Amino acid sequence: MINKRTYTTVCCALLVLLSGFCRSQELDLGKYVDPKIGSQGLGRVFIGPSCPFGMVKPSPDCTHRPNSGWLPMPEQINGFAQTHVSGTGGGPKYGNILIMPFVGELNQTSAIDHRQYEDIELGYYATTLNNSGIKVEVTTAPRASYYQVTYPTNASKSLLVDAGFFLGESPTPDAREAQQFVGSEISILSDRQISGYSRIRGGWNNGKAYTVYFFAETDKPFIKSATWKGDNISTESSQFDSGEKTGALVQFNPNDSIIQLKIGISFISTLKAEQNAKSEITEWSFDKVRQQLIGQWNELFNNMLIAESTPENYKRMFYTGLYHTMLMPVDRTGENPMWIDNEPYYDDFYAIWDTYRSSLPLITLIDSERESDIVRSLINIYQRDGYMPDARSGNCNGRTQGGSNADIVVADAFVKGLKGIDYELGLEAMLKDATVPPGGNEEAEGRGGLTPYLELGYIPHGIDRAGNRTVEYAYCDYAIALVAKGLGKEDLYNHYLKQSENWKNLWRADYEHEGSKGFILPRDTEGNWLDSIPYGKSQYIQPKFVFTPIAFEGPWYTPWWSTFFYEANSWEYSLSIPHDVPALIELSGGDEAFEKRLNTFFDKNFFNVNNEPSFLSPCLYHWLGKPYLSSERIHDIIKKNYNDGPIGLPGNDDSGAMSSWLAFHMMGLYPNAGQDYYIINTPLLESTTMKLTDGKEFRISTKGFSKNNRYIQSATLNGKEYPYSTLRHADIANGGELVLKLGTKPTNWGSEMFAAE
Amino acid sequence: MINKRTYTTVCCALLVLLSGFCRSQELDLGKYVDPKIGSQGLGRVFIGPSCPFGMVKPSPDCTHRPNSGWLPMPEQINGFAQTHVSGTGGGPKYGNILIMPFVGELNQTSAIDHRQYEDIELGYYATTLNNSGIKVEVTTAPRASYYQVTYPTNASKSLLVDAGFFLGESPTPDAREAQQFVGSEISILSDRQISGYSRIRGGWNNGKAYTVYFFAETDKPFIKSATWKGDNISTESSQFDSGEKTGALVQFNPNDSIIQLKIGISFISTLKAEQNAKSEITEWSFDKVRQQLIGQWNELFNNMLIAESTPENYKRMFYTGLYHTMLMPVDRTGENPMWIDNEPYYDDFYAIWDTYRSSLPLITLIDSERESDIVRSLINIYQRDGYMPDARSGNCNGRTQGGSNADIVVADAFVKGLKGIDYELGLEAMLKDATVPPGGNEEAEGRGGLTPYLELGYIPHGIDRAGNRTVEYAYCDYAIALVAKGLGKEDLYNHYLKQSENWKNLWRADYEHEGSKGFILPRDTEGNWLDSIPYGKSQYIQPKFVFTPIAFEGPWYTPWWSTFFYEANSWEYSLSIPHDVPALIELSGGDEAFEKRLNTFFDKNFFNVNNEPSFLSPCLYHWLGKPYLSSERIHDIIKKNYNDGPIGLPGNDDSGAMSSWLAFHMMGLYPNAGQDYYIINTPLLESTTMKLTDGKEFRISTKGFSKNNRYIQSATLNGKEYPYSTLRHADIANGGELVLKLGTKPTNWGSEMFAAE
Repeated sequence: MINKRTYTTVCCALLVLLSGFCRSQELDLGKYVDPKIGSQGLGRVFIGPSCPFGMVKPSPDCTHRPNSGWLPMPEQINGFAQTHVSGTGGGPKYGNILIMPFVGELNQTSAIDHRQYEDIELGYYATTLNNSGIKVEVTTAPRASYYQVTYPTNASKSLLVDAGFFLGESPTPDAREAQQFVGSEISILSDRQISGYSRIRGGWNNGKAYTVYFFAETDKPFIKSATWKGDNISTESSQFDSGEKTGALVQFNPNDSIIQLKIGISFISTLKAEQNAKSEITEWSFDKVRQQLIGQWNELFNNMLIAESTPENYKRMFYTGLYHTMLMPVDRTGENPMWIDNEPYYDDFYAIWDTYRSSLPLITLIDSERESDIVRSLINIYQRDGYMPDARSGNCNGRTQGGSNADIVVADAFVKGLKGIDYELGLEAMLKDATVPPGGNEEAEGRGGLTPYLELGYIPHGIDRAGNRTVEYAYCDYAIALVAKGLGKEDLYNHYLKQSENWKNLWRADYEHEGSKGFILPRDTEGNWLDSIPYGKSQYIQPKFVFTPIAFEGPWYTPWWSTFFYEANSWEYSLSIPHDVPALIELSGGDEAFEKRLNTFFDKNFFNVNNEPSFLSPCLYHWLGKPYLSSERIHDIIKKNYNDGPIGLPGNDDSGAMSSWLAFHMMGLYPNAGQDYYIINTPLLESTTMKLTDGKEFRISTKGFSKNNRYIQSATLNGKEYPYSTLRHADIANGGELVLKLGTKPTNWGSEMFAAE
Repeated sequence: MINKRTYTTVCCALLVLLSGFCRSQELDLGKYVDPKIGSQGLGRVFIGPSCPFGMVKPSPDCTHRPNSGWLPMPEQINGFAQTHVSGTGGGPKYGNILIMPFVGELNQTSAIDHRQYEDIELGYYATTLNNSGIKVEVTTAPRASYYQVTYPTNASKSLLVDAGFFLGESPTPDAREAQQFVGSEISILSDRQISGYSRIRGGWNNGKAYTVYFFAETDKPFIKSATWKGDNISTESSQFDSGEKTGALVQFNPNDSIIQLKIGISFISTLKAEQNAKSEITEWSFDKVRQQLIGQWNELFNNMLIAESTPENYKRMFYTGLYHTMLMPVDRTGENPMWIDNEPYYDDFYAIWDTYRSSLPLITLIDSERESDIVRSLINIYQRDGYMPDARSGNCNGRTQGGSNADIVVADAFVKGLKGIDYELGLEAMLKDATVPPGGNEEAEGRGGLTPYLELGYIPHGIDRAGNRTVEYAYCDYAIALVAKGLGKEDLYNHYLKQSENWKNLWRADYEHEGSKGFILPRDTEGNWLDSIPYGKSQYIQPKFVFTPIAFEGPWYTPWWSTFFYEANSWEYSLSIPHDVPALIELSGGDEAFEKRLNTFFDKNFFNVNNEPSFLSPCLYHWLGKPYLSSERIHDIIKKNYNDGPIGLPGNDDSGAMSSWLAFHMMGLYPNAGQDYYIINTPLLESTTMKLTDGKEFRISTKGFSKNNRYIQSATLNGKEYPYSTLRHADIANGGELVLKLGTKPTNWGSEMFAAE
């Protein structure tokens, strides 16, 4: 058996070596990445340095609260932890192994400070601390972070390493979604080396314990050191794990004003962390580490070349969008403490419910081999843990948001012909989702409410998230049908194609709201429609409230998990049938009624830009033969909600979900994930050239690109007239060019979506 | 929060300190323990040294095959691993961190040898190896093992430490029940210290990965050392974990013929392993470590004093029985890598299906505080992992055998008034079992087939283990009813009391076999009785075989898990209704028919001595008012199946199940686990004195004890006439004396089982 860990280590090392060379023909597109975009407001993106899909993500941690670690000034700074996630909602995760340089003696276990300024760039973070006057610069390799610390000259030059810090700590024991301390350990190994670990459980996905091991090395020796356990600082060189927080304190020679520090991280062991640090960072050169990081990003960005004429702000929005999309999931191949085999291992799927729609399809276009590895890791997790994750973090499945959306990821890879994936096994994993209820474990994996879904054809009100689960399971069933058909399993195909109509069982045809008729609405086990639903679950008093298509409310104490719809309302989910829009239009009363419905949806702001259920909705005009209306809505949404500033993303970026939605629409394409086509809209970029993995190129270009020419007049594909408003993935994969001629007024281009089969 | 780990460490240290003193009035009963009893044949008991409930269990490992590590000579010996289980069936677990002294240079990664002789005693194992001539002596502390190695004088004195060894290794990837390698690491820390770990998954319970960390220290320095990874031996002082097997080789000075070696083990970290080694073994004295171990056992054995007149072989059988009962579960408080809190933590419940009947009730009598801790740990596992285990090993629930039998353990503690347990939370845990199907996870926890059980009142044929699950779930329901009633929850009590009659739904009243009528038999979903059941699950050919009350057969490729009854047949399960024997007698046609049925059962050998489902059956004559018939059967079973030799146990000891059944019956008591009484039989011991935790004593004594006086003539309890054939737990707990007058012929003593309430 080829040992995957060794293989990966070698590959990483090669990648690091190569990334400095062979790139002369590449453009430095990384300069357009601004990690601050989406960092404030709801975006919550990670602002620190990270390699593509990088395991280590160092960042300042400003209190224990923020999901990404960072908060804008003037918030305090506790230090710099090595592990973070990007764009997440709910309870924080990670924030492990915090370091903080300080000025003073080794008699303190924390050194909270404030920032004078900060500089946030691709692969670079720098700040100067208020009280201490210390400057900290940060960059990173995939599995080891790198710090350059510049102390003021006349000061004791100290550093703390806190193995007990983590984000989302709560004084309430077992607080929901809060991370919980399990243990930590610290050892001062020599006068330049410290190792240890932090073991934490819980957090957003309520995961089991994970352990972050580290190995830290400085370029200059410690002249003093101490360790702590709990509140007790001592001269012991190590502190064993007795279920208390531990840390180390070191001091450097007063003449050593600049200290370089590398911190290898591992989920396997401290020795593996050491190996990661030593193999990825071979010399004391901050710039080299940063240049290697930039090289890795540029290699990917050069697969997506956009017109040079593109305005600066759009370049920033586009490449930062690609950047956000490739921060997670995280490549942990060789770092899986649960099993070894020859499959890639990814963690921090956070959550597939968010990312299956646009993030993962975008990765397919940028780097299809990477997406293939990601899909293989999902199927491998099914093999080892029993279910594919809907979300996964800290080596633990959970929490499922809506459906078993990994089904759609497998189908998306299948219909797009991704290589190297065992699709028979993938189908087995999908069928597990569709047939085996996860029991009491439904928050972690599988399809909660599966039993009534199969018995009744819908999930009755009273089961958490009954509405969107019904709608989403139906789409997951369609994904199964597609793969089954492709693998020649006609019986399965027919069964799941039929089952994919289950969303219709919650379609309340006669319900009218704001001039539109027919909505996905709550139904009880006996099949009765519920006009009002109970407010809370008290046995004694049962107030009810009228449930309407714009109702968001559950009881005040009920999280999203327990409402009828997850993160959206009936207006949104009643438009969220990606596999059978024609049937949806028919049930909605035909083309005219559906167009009116869409207009109401957008004009009355029932559309919610900051969560994913409505990601496809602006494209639905295509099914009415009016793609120009889709383009109008999309451009309007982008104009109102996206920009290249810190509040440039309208919702939690959710692992690049918001960012990839934007990047796709800027190119003029949008995927219907799980199916093999993209919807064509008027691009915001004059041209995009995709370099595909096998050396082929596909180009989207425009004629007459200008602010006023907002409408596609006609199109050609590889020089031939192309009247359809969608493009098959195979047309991209085969290489070629789509030319869109633009003009000031809509035409009837795109009145048909697809060529006749 | 009091930190439990520190607390435990202190307590362990105190225990170690105390165990050498304060015991002057104690008898050395440990001398009657013979770890060889039950080591051959089916018994599979662990033969190495172990403290009571000790985490570390060093033993010779003779190939990778045996469950306990050991096999009799002349089988080869691979070395000595530090972790083992006792009396288990199915695939092996543990066998981690193997050491082997050898003679020769440091150029080999294994040193398989043979034994010249061996000496197996309480807390002591010794052997001399054939090829090398090395003598190895082994003893152990709770969390650290101790070796004394005597090398031949003229030889290179070498030792290997194999962090990659484990039991049950299979060349087939993912072979069912086989342990699978995940990773290992090794570091030579100094010229006397080595640390590292072994990370393994799978094994009998198909558990997730567990990590066994170690810290080894010798009393004399290494003069040479090497390490290996895979097949490659090198001079590196450490080998990081790259998913390959690693180990260390060291050599001692030729003049150092005797080497002492202690190996601390931890499930937390190598530093914790070091702490365990250093805190538990404070000086280089083999004898002191062994004496501390013996002291710990004697303290427990002195809670169960038997008549001095007892024949030697009975003393050996009795105290070895107690010994076997207290080898597992294993006290891992402070060694839980998954969470920390103030609750005790036990692992290696293997399985509760085996141990709830007699092992755990026996621990309640020997050391009720220990049993209370065990129950608390079960409830704590529910809190943290979602379900109480039926079995658990390597920090992972699995595999459930029959019902959710932890329910009965909680009820047993409740009805016996064990202190310190949160019974409200315990009831919550029981209700989780009874109401939330474990979904695809049913092999690990909860009640598989719960949905049809609740819908139909029985589990239909076709679902694994439908027969015994129905019978056992009904008893678990009764356990819930008892606790609910005790906690004043009348509604719950009534509900579960009713549900506890579900076994009747599989009672096929008109079915006759060997002169008896009415059997638990397979029924389909529609309620039809099945005379024949399919042989296998092929879609194309479906041969059937006639299913009778003595049928054991499933398809040849079907393990116990997939048959209708687990580890027993219908004759056995049709007598296995511990909560409603009167109803069973009635359904069986009344007293006369039932007595005939019991006689047929034993006389025709439908009774199976080597598994647990029939543990209570020999006592069933009590319900006919004829306890003397129970005693006759029991004495006959013991005579035929139990002795003080290596094949002295009739089945897998299953964590002390067989041994505790024997020990109880030797005393003249047998518990109906989950209920508050013991069945009284003619004891094999002239007297037994129990020292209870609170200082009270309870004594069972006899008058006229002799071989010929096999029958109880009359009894007194605390001096008053006692006509009943059972004894309430409260009567024991309150202290006092039960005197049984014995004679040659049965009388009508015990024609009533219970005093009127």
